[in-house]
Amino acid sequence: MRPLTLDALNPQLQTVQYAVRGELAIRAETLREQLKQPNNGLPFEQVISSNIGDPQQKGLDQKPITFTRQVAALMEWPALAELAPDVFPPDVVARAKELQEEIGSIGAYSDSQGVPLIRKSVANFIAERDGHPASPGDIFLTAGACAGVSLLLNLLITAPTDGILIPIPQYPLYTATLAQHHGTPVGYLLNEADGWSTDPESIRAALAKAAAEGVQIKALVVINPGNPTGALLAEDTMRTLVTLCEEHSLVLLADEVYQDNVHDRTQHTFVSFKKVVRDMRSPVPLVSFHSISKGVSGECGRRGGYFELANFADGVRALVYKLVCVCLAAPVSGQIGLDTMVGPPRVGDASYALWREETRAIHAALAERTRAMADALNRLPGVRCVQSPGALYLFPQITLPATAVASAREAGKEPDAVYAMGLLEATGICVVPGSGFGQKEGEWHYRLTCLCPGTDEYVGKLVQFHIQYLAEWEKA
Amino acid sequence: MRPLTLDALNPQLQTVQYAVRGELAIRAETLREQLKQPNNGLPFEQVISSNIGDPQQKGLDQKPITFTRQVAALMEWPALAELAPDVFPPDVVARAKELQEEIGSIGAYSDSQGVPLIRKSVANFIAERDGHPASPGDIFLTAGACAGVSLLLNLLITAPTDGILIPIPQYPLYTATLAQHHGTPVGYLLNEADGWSTDPESIRAALAKAAAEGVQIKALVVINPGNPTGALLAEDTMRTLVTLCEEHSLVLLADEVYQDNVHDRTQHTFVSFKKVVRDMRSPVPLVSFHSISKGVSGECGRRGGYFELANFADGVRALVYKLVCVCLAAPVSGQIGLDTMVGPPRVGDASYALWREETRAIHAALAERTRAMADALNRLPGVRCVQSPGALYLFPQITLPATAVASAREAGKEPDAVYAMGLLEATGICVVPGSGFGQKEGEWHYRLTCLCPGTDEYVGKLVQFHIQYLAEWEKA
Repeated sequence: MRPLTLDALNPQLQTVQYAVRGELAIRAETLREQLKQPNNGLPFEQVISSNIGDPQQKGLDQKPITFTRQVAALMEWPALAELAPDVFPPDVVARAKELQEEIGSIGAYSDSQGVPLIRKSVANFIAERDGHPASPGDIFLTAGACAGVSLLLNLLITAPTDGILIPIPQYPLYTATLAQHHGTPVGYLLNEADGWSTDPESIRAALAKAAAEGVQIKALVVINPGNPTGALLAEDTMRTLVTLCEEHSLVLLADEVYQDNVHDRTQHTFVSFKKVVRDMRSPVPLVSFHSISKGVSGECGRRGGYFELANFADGVRALVYKLVCVCLAAPVSGQIGLDTMVGPPRVGDASYALWREETRAIHAALAERTRAMADALNRLPGVRCVQSPGALYLFPQITLPATAVASAREAGKEPDAVYAMGLLEATGICVVPGSGFGQKEGEWHYRLTCLCPGTDEYVGKLVQFHIQYLAEWEKA
Repeated sequence: MRPLTLDALNPQLQTVQYAVRGELAIRAETLREQLKQPNNGLPFEQVISSNIGDPQQKGLDQKPITFTRQVAALMEWPALAELAPDVFPPDVVARAKELQEEIGSIGAYSDSQGVPLIRKSVANFIAERDGHPASPGDIFLTAGACAGVSLLLNLLITAPTDGILIPIPQYPLYTATLAQHHGTPVGYLLNEADGWSTDPESIRAALAKAAAEGVQIKALVVINPGNPTGALLAEDTMRTLVTLCEEHSLVLLADEVYQDNVHDRTQHTFVSFKKVVRDMRSPVPLVSFHSISKGVSGECGRRGGYFELANFADGVRALVYKLVCVCLAAPVSGQIGLDTMVGPPRVGDASYALWREETRAIHAALAERTRAMADALNRLPGVRCVQSPGALYLFPQITLPATAVASAREAGKEPDAVYAMGLLEATGICVVPGSGFGQKEGEWHYRLTCLCPGTDEYVGKLVQFHIQYLAEWEKA
């Protein structure tokens, strides 16, 4: 028989780039294994995966929210409520009981769209957040945000000449998923000089370019707070983007998974696109994505999230419903996590004080680390880093010596990827090169999460590596 | 702006049919709501979702395996081991501890391919089952089998003229997923007269027809034990199918999610395609799918499963790895469920006796119900039902009065769908019409699960409805 070789397989998928889990991440795993050996000869004691926004990963210190895990434990084994009666606070027992009465066993499939009671809780959360009503019928519970993004892109792409507007730099989920569904990504450049702001003019330019190339734009992707930039959209910009979607009949795909990651709430507030669309009484079809993986929840491993449809016709919503049925509902464990995230303990509940302290500490640590890292990076020669008000990331620009750029090019590699590999080998810190997100021609960046343990030591390693790197290349 | 209407959306997706959660299932949910009203006027007290193989669903009596849920509860809230020390058996505590040391928090992303320790347990399970080695590197943990099926079909389909051989009747996941990835399903008929056996000649015929139509067949899908048929493949047939894949350079996609659902183990044994391929020393690229949703586990809601690659080149496996990275690993809760399924308590462990009794009772109840239902159906005029040795289903053929067929056709409906809707309205029992799986022109079937509560009363309702139905149409 003919062996199965790559040339027989879907060529689009072979173009998929997913730098967040790419060559560097694979090398990091190898080093992690090597560390387990005695006399491994490595210059560091720990590999830190700053390449991925994974708050509860081994070696970091973000703990899960106790309320979430207590409810989840009771859902797994309801007999615990009787077997260990004094262990669970009354509000935990009550929440688990309410969910069990609705769901029955968490080992059963839920409604394909998600547990109705939990969709109701999500609708209440959205209504409280925006001051506009939300309907459980418009909410679809998913296995993390990416499952929803994939479904919507699959739905919107009807031909390879269909395009989706994505920010540059972008989160590579979008280009990867577009490759899977044979669509065309059309980038619009964010403005680093203005704190990674979104300039509607750059979107208009991208639309004009696409039209000239015969690409029909179906939707606009906006990531707010930004990934990898950590930028927060100004409300007037959001209004302009909604108007722009109206003018060009675009679906607005709002990736708002970092909405709870706003560091200084005295200075910055997250405003949802749902609120803006409703405030404007706009007819723009909006899909808003949220997740339990980020924020103070950080429950990446549960795979939970939702998307809300606004201004979608019944027939289109029915088609979306039919598609979610094919893979038979999101993980119930993720749906439970979502229920506790959108409906945390309230003042007066037994779990409230602990929940409040746990969430305060997580917000404070993230804000402090983000500030300290950006300050230290900005003190370095050849590094400029926007102080990010939100999300989990910094995206510093690094000016690389011409000699370093040339030698990377000779090796057929991206200069910032070579820089990042050098950082990993020297310090055990794994970041993602800017080339994995897209950046202006001739500029170089990397993305790092602000989730490190021991900020001073961590930042010290970044600084020391960068200085040595410059010294070596200036000698060269 | 132009409103978003169906004609602007992916036409392939609009052709998706997923009868298992289709019109009947939606009507069943409406009736379930109606039952909550006093004086609802419905002729039944309970809606029974026999349309879906969901062992732990509300109203049924299959309980989760205690060992699985105890380990899962400790993973959710590890402090329980100290807070409730006498509640958990020592082997549960030990398993949870071992998993926690490997995974850390279950709120963190796992390795994209799945937790290495759990992939090792899966490899041991496969090696014990087949008597051939298995490698953790070839095993990919997934959110149920369907996620893996979707990934593999996406990978294999390079053009709309690429075809995949699927059994008729089939599980509609395959046609639905092929529609999502723009591939062509090519059916081969199973032989009902011979207990739904697979006839290699019907596959050869399908291959010839495809070739004549310019469809390039990339893979052969085999479901064993069968869904919806419950049939078990004979080993000599499996060898012939492997040879056929060799002759035509086909990838073999083996859907083996019901491998633990074999009713009479004195008469029937499940043999995996992995064993057959290795016994034959065949080079056929094989993907074998398994899941925690069926068998005695029945943990549908966790979304857990795996696929194993055999005879895949390193470069192809690397591409598969890159693709699983894009959606960031399977739910850890599902991976935990998989670990306890492939590594249950052993003789001498504290949990062994309970586990043994729980699994024995589930197997026994399913075997007894399957037999009793098939017997009762076979006593009915105009019904012929193959006694299925495996899976969770029966797929009786029903001979419908010409008048009933004609009236359904006039209404633009499938006659077996009308029959099934009548059954639902009269009894509260929701089944799936054969037209949802595919069947010979002019034949009618329905699929029902063998998971009902109170077999006698349930069967009585099926019988009574059928007799009344015939009587009414013979009057007509």
